[in-house]
Amino acid sequence: MSTEHLQAPTSDQISEPIETDILIIGAGPTGLFAVFEAGLLQLKCHLIDALPQPGGQCSELYPKKPIYDIPGFPEVLAGDLVDNLMEQIKPFQPGFTLGERADTLEELEDGKFLVTTNKGTKHIASAVAIAGGLGSFEPRKPLLENLGQFEDKGVAYIIRDPEYYRGKKVIIAGGGDSALDWTIFLADLAEELTLVHRRNEFRGALDSVEKVQQLKNEGKVKLITPAEVVALKGESHLEGVQVKKTDTDEVIDLDVEEFVPLFGLSPKLGPLADWGLEIEKNAIKVNNSLDYQTNRPGVYAIGDVNTYPGKLKLILCGFHEATLMVQSAYQRIFPDKRYVLKYTTVGGVTGFDGSKKEAPKAVVKKIE
Amino acid sequence: MSTEHLQAPTSDQISEPIETDILIIGAGPTGLFAVFEAGLLQLKCHLIDALPQPGGQCSELYPKKPIYDIPGFPEVLAGDLVDNLMEQIKPFQPGFTLGERADTLEELEDGKFLVTTNKGTKHIASAVAIAGGLGSFEPRKPLLENLGQFEDKGVAYIIRDPEYYRGKKVIIAGGGDSALDWTIFLADLAEELTLVHRRNEFRGALDSVEKVQQLKNEGKVKLITPAEVVALKGESHLEGVQVKKTDTDEVIDLDVEEFVPLFGLSPKLGPLADWGLEIEKNAIKVNNSLDYQTNRPGVYAIGDVNTYPGKLKLILCGFHEATLMVQSAYQRIFPDKRYVLKYTTVGGVTGFDGSKKEAPKAVVKKIE
Ligand SMILES: Cc1cc2nc3c(=O)[nH]c(=O)nc-3n(C[C@H](O)[C@H](O)[C@H](O)COP(=O)(O)OP(=O)(O)OC[C@H]3O[C@@H](n4cnc5c(N)ncnc54)[C@H](O)[C@@H]3O)c2cc1C
Ligand SMILES: Cc1cc2nc3c(=O)[nH]c(=O)nc-3n(C[C@H](O)[C@H](O)[C@H](O)COP(=O)(O)OP(=O)(O)OC[C@H]3O[C@@H](n4cnc5c(N)ncnc54)[C@H](O)[C@@H]3O)c2cc1C
Repeated sequence: MSTEHLQAPTSDQISEPIETDILIIGAGPTGLFAVFEAGLLQLKCHLIDALPQPGGQCSELYPKKPIYDIPGFPEVLAGDLVDNLMEQIKPFQPGFTLGERADTLEELEDGKFLVTTNKGTKHIASAVAIAGGLGSFEPRKPLLENLGQFEDKGVAYIIRDPEYYRGKKVIIAGGGDSALDWTIFLADLAEELTLVHRRNEFRGALDSVEKVQQLKNEGKVKLITPAEVVALKGESHLEGVQVKKTDTDEVIDLDVEEFVPLFGLSPKLGPLADWGLEIEKNAIKVNNSLDYQTNRPGVYAIGDVNTYPGKLKLILCGFHEATLMVQSAYQRIFPDKRYVLKYTTVGGVTGFDGSKKEAPKAVVKKIE
Repeated sequence: MSTEHLQAPTSDQISEPIETDILIIGAGPTGLFAVFEAGLLQLKCHLIDALPQPGGQCSELYPKKPIYDIPGFPEVLAGDLVDNLMEQIKPFQPGFTLGERADTLEELEDGKFLVTTNKGTKHIASAVAIAGGLGSFEPRKPLLENLGQFEDKGVAYIIRDPEYYRGKKVIIAGGGDSALDWTIFLADLAEELTLVHRRNEFRGALDSVEKVQQLKNEGKVKLITPAEVVALKGESHLEGVQVKKTDTDEVIDLDVEEFVPLFGLSPKLGPLADWGLEIEKNAIKVNNSLDYQTNRPGVYAIGDVNTYPGKLKLILCGFHEATLMVQSAYQRIFPDKRYVLKYTTVGGVTGFDGSKKEAPKAVVKKIE
């Protein structure tokens, strides 16, 4: 594939970009751990993720489920693993651009890379590590004529800040874990909360289903099933919805300011597919015999997003790939320095925040 | 290198060998985690280690020191990591041959491998995974003329079973963590305990040095420094030693039944170097672009013991290598089966002991 179609803008065309050593696309477990390994080499990282929170699939798809094959953890909840990783990388003060999708990758004249998001945020880095997993998570949307008109004006597919819903009239649609969990969470915050689902049965953790049942019994949540939202009303902002009971065809008018359809997120490789990288089996081909670099020098792909002979889409593999990638990026950034591996147990961990973790030193002491 | 010099004995020449699917040489973190990944594929493992306990370098060299770069652990003591791994692999009931060194590897007529230890224990397996780290740990021995005569007859370089020393007269030599730790441990067990060191200063964890000082003050340990054991006496078993004070040249005769010189263990690739494997930089060359197989089909090398371009001797890398290795061994053992990766979160962990770990299932339930 050719990369000739990519224009190389000069640096002065760019307004206040975020600068870093390694720009990581995707803040899943692989991208997060890369920050730690980079930090050990004194390289700074910045992460971009389409989701509003770090953790990738672990946070978005199964935060409360146990994983059994993380080495050293006979069992760990996916959400706790992400919390642990966030704690582990804290000394290296990663930057985050969350809730934005990395859309374009351009090579600058000085060999650095410029990555721009769908919201126009610009990032410049010496190396780019794509840790994009199965792709950026895009919401499944309901089929409603004027949906686009109300996006971010009363319609949201992801809850970024629950506080935003305090004192508001809210309707949630969906029948899975997300719909149940957010119903429970918003029940205390919203002034009025309605949950609509196209079936009578919900599918999720038993305690979540039971909790929603209880909230319904207490009158804190209004439940309409089997039903779906069929129309949106309002001027500049959403003012109401029509809900149709699918068993009786009855149509109910509801005054609501916020509509949150939670029909699941599906990952899409999306823009990454247009970055001039070799793609195979919907993943990015890398050189696994060395450093997980793609066909574009300085651009790496690690974790679920890459492919090579024998590839396994497992978290522990992403950790290894991140570690080797960072060594190669270091050589690219400092071609003249020779990095000598130092065990963390021996050298400790020196954070960019001035923190220092280290093993208690042995003493040399007389016994008399 | 050629493997022609290896004789292939037939199976009936072998007396009661231990049979398993994957034989793992080395019970360090890499070898231990391989048991887990093999177990997920329903493959049984047996481990051989020259040390009396599992854990490799982590257990032998720095059990009480923190490691900071195990993914998901902002900090974990090396000994705790090993405990966690032992817990994680428990459902897969690995066998252990401990305190024995794997000395020879032979290929049998049926394509299986026969591995024999220095004590003659025989093991047969369909695949061999060498996870030998820096080599098998061999003790540094004091230079004493008739030392060999008393080995295992009053002289031991590694304490396998502390209970063995109960009620006995024991002398320990050494000035590092091992000597300090075992002095503390045996102080309550032994009838008499003497600690000899060639300097006045000990080198180790502050609390260990202080504890030994306290035991000395209480008269529970006799300390002779600066001094060394210069002669061993006895007939079929050790009966006494001569200790020479190196500052005054005074020679002290001591009645002791057990002499434990703890001068450290140094790893030696040793017999592995003669198994017809390609060696480079004192490590075994493997195919890192696929499955960490050596030049001998069916023989893999994982963890610190292997080398390839970009190799890092880190625990987390051993975990990844073990995982990919096991997939290849599975294909070798079951050439006709196609393994489909199943997430542990989704499929759970089914132990050979009948145990089953699994994530709580989602329910499908009506809210009314
Ligand atoms: C139900 C389930 C159970 C699982 N169980 C296990 C298990 O037991 N063991 C195991 O090892 N693995 C398991 N997995 C797989 C594991 O979650 C993945 O291997 C892991 O999350 C991959 O991490 P990653 O960091 O490579 O990618 P991801 O976790 O997928 O994170 C990638 C991130 O990149 C972001 N992204 C992608 N493209 C862009 C872009 N252009 N701009 C901005 N952001 C972008 C995405 O939004 C996402 O947040 C399971 C997965 C699921 C769904
Ligand atoms: C002081 C120190 C600090 C460290 N800090 C870190 C750190 O912070 N992070 C990190 O990732 N790593 C660290 N390491 C390195 C880490 O311990 C190793 O990478 C790890 O132990 C390798 O695991 P392994 O299972 O491959 O081999 P090992 O742990 O070396 O285990 C190999 C085992 O194989 C056995 N063996 C070898 N040959 C034979 C044979 N022929 N027969 C029988 N048994 C045999 C040996 O006895 C040994 O027990 C540190 C090491 C040291 C010494």
